[in-house]
Amino acid sequence: MTSREIERVLIAGGTHGNEWIGSWLVKRWLKDPEPVRRRGFETLMLLANPEAVARHVRYVDQDLNRSFCPASSETPGALEARRAQEILRRFGPEGVTPASAVLDLHTTTANMGLSYIITNREPFNLRMAAWVRRHEPRLRVYLWIDETLPDSALSGIVPRGVTIEVGPTPNNVIRADLLIGTERVVKLCLDYLQDAALGVADPMSGENLEVFEHVRSYDYPRDASGQLLAVVHPDLQDRDYQPLHPGDPTFLMLDGETLRYAEQEVVYPVFINEAAYYEKGLAFSVARRRTLSL
Amino acid sequence: MTSREIERVLIAGGTHGNEWIGSWLVKRWLKDPEPVRRRGFETLMLLANPEAVARHVRYVDQDLNRSFCPASSETPGALEARRAQEILRRFGPEGVTPASAVLDLHTTTANMGLSYIITNREPFNLRMAAWVRRHEPRLRVYLWIDETLPDSALSGIVPRGVTIEVGPTPNNVIRADLLIGTERVVKLCLDYLQDAALGVADPMSGENLEVFEHVRSYDYPRDASGQLLAVVHPDLQDRDYQPLHPGDPTFLMLDGETLRYAEQEVVYPVFINEAAYYEKGLAFSVARRRTLSL
Repeated sequence: MTSREIERVLIAGGTHGNEWIGSWLVKRWLKDPEPVRRRGFETLMLLANPEAVARHVRYVDQDLNRSFCPASSETPGALEARRAQEILRRFGPEGVTPASAVLDLHTTTANMGLSYIITNREPFNLRMAAWVRRHEPRLRVYLWIDETLPDSALSGIVPRGVTIEVGPTPNNVIRADLLIGTERVVKLCLDYLQDAALGVADPMSGENLEVFEHVRSYDYPRDASGQLLAVVHPDLQDRDYQPLHPGDPTFLMLDGETLRYAEQEVVYPVFINEAAYYEKGLAFSVARRRTLSL
Repeated sequence: MTSREIERVLIAGGTHGNEWIGSWLVKRWLKDPEPVRRRGFETLMLLANPEAVARHVRYVDQDLNRSFCPASSETPGALEARRAQEILRRFGPEGVTPASAVLDLHTTTANMGLSYIITNREPFNLRMAAWVRRHEPRLRVYLWIDETLPDSALSGIVPRGVTIEVGPTPNNVIRADLLIGTERVVKLCLDYLQDAALGVADPMSGENLEVFEHVRSYDYPRDASGQLLAVVHPDLQDRDYQPLHPGDPTFLMLDGETLRYAEQEVVYPVFINEAAYYEKGLAFSVARRRTLSL
């Protein structure tokens, strides 16, 4: 890897306007970039959806983080569809100042701890994950490759793209513990990127990495009009990345009945009861735990 | 107490449209009132702010739960100002079907557990609290009497009014554990109201009740333009109802400095880092722990 490969690292926050840790950090680093300055590349900051940040909402017209795939921009007049094009013209592969790597900062209401989410199998992203995890063992790596969905996330505009997702936190709140955790993961990513930019031999080659690989998602039980018929079972709530065995409770129905996991395989749920995913028809996803050799 | 005193109990939910437990329960009990039916009075259900519930927002124009005092309705054209008048015309003391008691269901992003909030010293409210606490010892009673503010809450439209406030939960999410806890507290209140309506001698007379009595509130440190200069300190986060000693950390400043509690008295913080209170200038309130004789 040569220094030309990593010229510009983009840190994005406020992609969702009600996730305050990312927008707070980006605003702070815009004022004082010293903590995110590294040798070998330029660090750029992006407040991705300033209008949504100002209004304290996830988005104005549509989810910006599902707007980067042309096919997904079904409403080209939407504020976020226009904003996505603007971001691509600046930082995309053909942009004015193309990003060599993207770190996009998010929060979740689910108990996801410090999560590192990647939507492709780019070896660089996996090796960076392994290196961060060596220094921050709480980090969990979620490989969210969904063959049924195009990758329309901001972190996917270039191959070296990562979403840092921390929780649990309500929206429109800053929890100091998760703020500090996010800062720590970002700085570790930047340290790894610096070594890569400076041509230091990658210490993670040949190492192993535990990842949680997306299998599928489950919606809430609903009636014909889409109204919820159940809530996430109290025994499943907060158990992100914990094993879900066949027969374990998943939902608590209105009438008090418990629904149970009916598949044969032990899986690891993620994004359990994320506020923003009710409208996406997603109560939780399940992943397989795998060990990858880098 | 005679049966004529309690004729009609109003259960309100969705006073804030992004607090889903209350609106969920009210919608459910509108369909099937059996769980909230008691002898001696009629139980009425109110989805207090249906427009805000439909939009998944706390309010449309202004906070409905600060709109019941005429002086506080400074924007009479606001949707919530009109809605408050409508609710008063139906359930207020001079209304068509005046409520004898009100239970208003709320959630908070703060770690308030199962809280019972009263904004007056009506002995009935205190005795009902003591009775509920006897059967649900996790209940905490917060006496939120702020001499500097008029009582403009929905629960204050009649003297026997209580806000049931559960947390921590993100907004726009239903956590089953807190849903079950809210249901339990409501049912215990209704059982007590039933005994009162039927003229059963009050078992709580002469008993003691531990309450947390509001002292004052603290805002976040801010710059001249109102921007936050600090976040709630990680050592204070989630420690609602836990003693705060002089010298204990309160805020973590942008530059890493820790601010500390500077008063002499040991107090008990509540509503620590509630999402909706950033705009109200309230990072946390502090209360005194007192024992009242009923």
